[in-house]
Amino acid sequence: MTSIGIAGAGISGLHLGLYLQQRDVPVTIYTDRTAEQLANGQLLNTVGHHHHTLERERALGIDHWDAAEYGYGVHHHTVVGVAPEPLRFRGDFEHPSLVIDYRLYLPQLMQDFEQRGGTIVIRQIDPAAVEQISRCHDLVVVAAGRGFSGMFSPIAAKSPYSRPQRRLSAGIYDGVRYPDPVGVSLHISAGHGELIELPITCRHGRATALLFENIPEGDTEVLADIRYEHDPGAFNRTVLEKLERHYPSAFERVEHSSFGLTGPSDILQGGLTPVVREDYVRLGSGRYAVAMGDAHCVADPINGQGANSASYSAAVIGQAIVEDYALDEQFCQRVARERQAFVYGVSDWTNLMLNPEPHLLELIGVMSQHKPVCDAFTQNFNHPDRQWDALATPERTAAFIARHSPQTAAAVG
Amino acid sequence: MTSIGIAGAGISGLHLGLYLQQRDVPVTIYTDRTAEQLANGQLLNTVGHHHHTLERERALGIDHWDAAEYGYGVHHHTVVGVAPEPLRFRGDFEHPSLVIDYRLYLPQLMQDFEQRGGTIVIRQIDPAAVEQISRCHDLVVVAAGRGFSGMFSPIAAKSPYSRPQRRLSAGIYDGVRYPDPVGVSLHISAGHGELIELPITCRHGRATALLFENIPEGDTEVLADIRYEHDPGAFNRTVLEKLERHYPSAFERVEHSSFGLTGPSDILQGGLTPVVREDYVRLGSGRYAVAMGDAHCVADPINGQGANSASYSAAVIGQAIVEDYALDEQFCQRVARERQAFVYGVSDWTNLMLNPEPHLLELIGVMSQHKPVCDAFTQNFNHPDRQWDALATPERTAAFIARHSPQTAAAVG
Repeated sequence: MTSIGIAGAGISGLHLGLYLQQRDVPVTIYTDRTAEQLANGQLLNTVGHHHHTLERERALGIDHWDAAEYGYGVHHHTVVGVAPEPLRFRGDFEHPSLVIDYRLYLPQLMQDFEQRGGTIVIRQIDPAAVEQISRCHDLVVVAAGRGFSGMFSPIAAKSPYSRPQRRLSAGIYDGVRYPDPVGVSLHISAGHGELIELPITCRHGRATALLFENIPEGDTEVLADIRYEHDPGAFNRTVLEKLERHYPSAFERVEHSSFGLTGPSDILQGGLTPVVREDYVRLGSGRYAVAMGDAHCVADPINGQGANSASYSAAVIGQAIVEDYALDEQFCQRVARERQAFVYGVSDWTNLMLNPEPHLLELIGVMSQHKPVCDAFTQNFNHPDRQWDALATPERTAAFIARHSPQTAAAVG
Repeated sequence: MTSIGIAGAGISGLHLGLYLQQRDVPVTIYTDRTAEQLANGQLLNTVGHHHHTLERERALGIDHWDAAEYGYGVHHHTVVGVAPEPLRFRGDFEHPSLVIDYRLYLPQLMQDFEQRGGTIVIRQIDPAAVEQISRCHDLVVVAAGRGFSGMFSPIAAKSPYSRPQRRLSAGIYDGVRYPDPVGVSLHISAGHGELIELPITCRHGRATALLFENIPEGDTEVLADIRYEHDPGAFNRTVLEKLERHYPSAFERVEHSSFGLTGPSDILQGGLTPVVREDYVRLGSGRYAVAMGDAHCVADPINGQGANSASYSAAVIGQAIVEDYALDEQFCQRVARERQAFVYGVSDWTNLMLNPEPHLLELIGVMSQHKPVCDAFTQNFNHPDRQWDALATPERTAAFIARHSPQTAAAVG
């Protein structure tokens, strides 16, 4: 009987494990951190699960948080520095999205998996471990974030950068009123970076996640460096100062008396070098290891696509395991083919947002004036493949605008 | 407004033209033969349309022949030469298939296209013509069978042969009673070739198509050489003689008084070299030409997959044209990716049937004893991608058998 080993217990490892468990395929998850360590650890990310991911969660019976109650349905956009007054506009989703602190989410899914009879083995995860795990399973799916650069080679054409394009500071804060309607706010401060502001559900209940995407050497870069634990008051003051200057439509919702990071573990600073790696490798055992999630594609969090893409990839791999007749190279090629448009879409679109070309800036200008175009762009957070279809060239973007706002296209054309 | 030129009016050219017409995309079909020339010409093929193709025909409103009345739902198999007595066994489809003489079918679809307002331009079709057509359209889809070797290069890894693997004789005959239940009969004469016997609807009404697939230098090869018009009586006698010796379960249904080819135009002899070509090429105009149908993939007719695959490809291309934002190289790559598993499945599976490996012969043996396995193989005539998933390696075929007949797998395993 086919047996699957999953190295890594992030969203993709757990979604795949739960999917296979639901279909009675023997599966073991290996990870280097217990649920308790995750729950009590440092902030892991601040990411929204979009409708396609929530639909898979419902199918897996792991929809513990109702998106109608805890979620959001709009993107509020503010662009500062391109016109005398900030541009403010909004795009609506067709279905709500949802942000849950992964220190609640992942331990809950680990518990679900174990309560349904699954085994999670706690051990170090590295390429040598994958070779060992491979001896006990017909396939190993590698869903671990770090340490696999040597196992899955970067695809040069899809990996244009050698360093992070943003220096990041993600944190959970009290004292920021939600916008009306509740939504994720996407703020751009031209030349300095972006702020992604999200309504997050965490151990304190509902709060606000602020993900500062700081352009190296821009005015907000300091946010990636200052240490909360050295001087919490100074940290909060610096954040407020940058909010006021660069992100006024967030700043105006701050309640100064209560504003501040919710605690020293609720901050994550650093940076990610975007990369797409080869889909699979043949191991010393003769069996195959398939890369999934961050082991396959690392995208900057600016679009919040990494987790959703990882979950999508888990679904592709899960369905292929259940349907196919072998876990050989043909299987691996099928997985690669079936997820390519989606994963490449995430990567290409995200890289364009980090270093926008003129046609993207023009699109943002059109979105600020024509809500149907902004709605389509927003809804495409569920369809990164289609988003990239609309963004890859100036001609494509013009056609995207024309489709969603024919009058506009005639006027600007 | 996007405008599409289609070079070729076979099944794929017409299905694509009708699909685009249905969605108000401007489209022109170019072909070198009029409907009347086709209707009065030589036999074009003898191919069954399977359920997925019939479903598309229904959606296009071109289902002029009811599959429930004119179709068939089973494959009768006979294998001679591997056991003392012929192996006889049967596989059932989930939905009926249908064989219509293309001299009725194609002119009817041309008439549908024109009656709905479409334009068919009669002109020579060659690479120079495609360059010319490209000046009037945003995309040219090349669906012509011959003369495009220089435009779309063969993919070496998918084109293993330099010559036909069977010498063919396809004809329409009176005097062969249909089997019970009505179905296509797949006869194998080990070492000599195959006979595909099909209930066909043609201008005479219902008759029988006999497609002799003759291995070069085998005993039946003469069927590809003898000329009906030289001596109809001798031709029919030779066919009968080969039927009696190699295909007894067809011979036993012959009514000798009425047996014979239905007319001098109802025969097609020759051979096809299997090839898969590149999906697209950039033309001198800067626009792209996409290969479809025989311009993209030529498969021997032994599995009857060419027309169905061409229709599938037309649907992929049609949907991509309607959905995508440009007809650029990214569009062409999308088409290539989305049809690859299906088209490669047709090619790889068909090539394996022409030169079977031991695991295919073992599968046929299992099919002869275990109808669920034969039913699954039969139903996969609708899913050549899945068929190849089941046939690519001995391990995969063993897993296919195990899935559809667990007891058998245990017994032979």
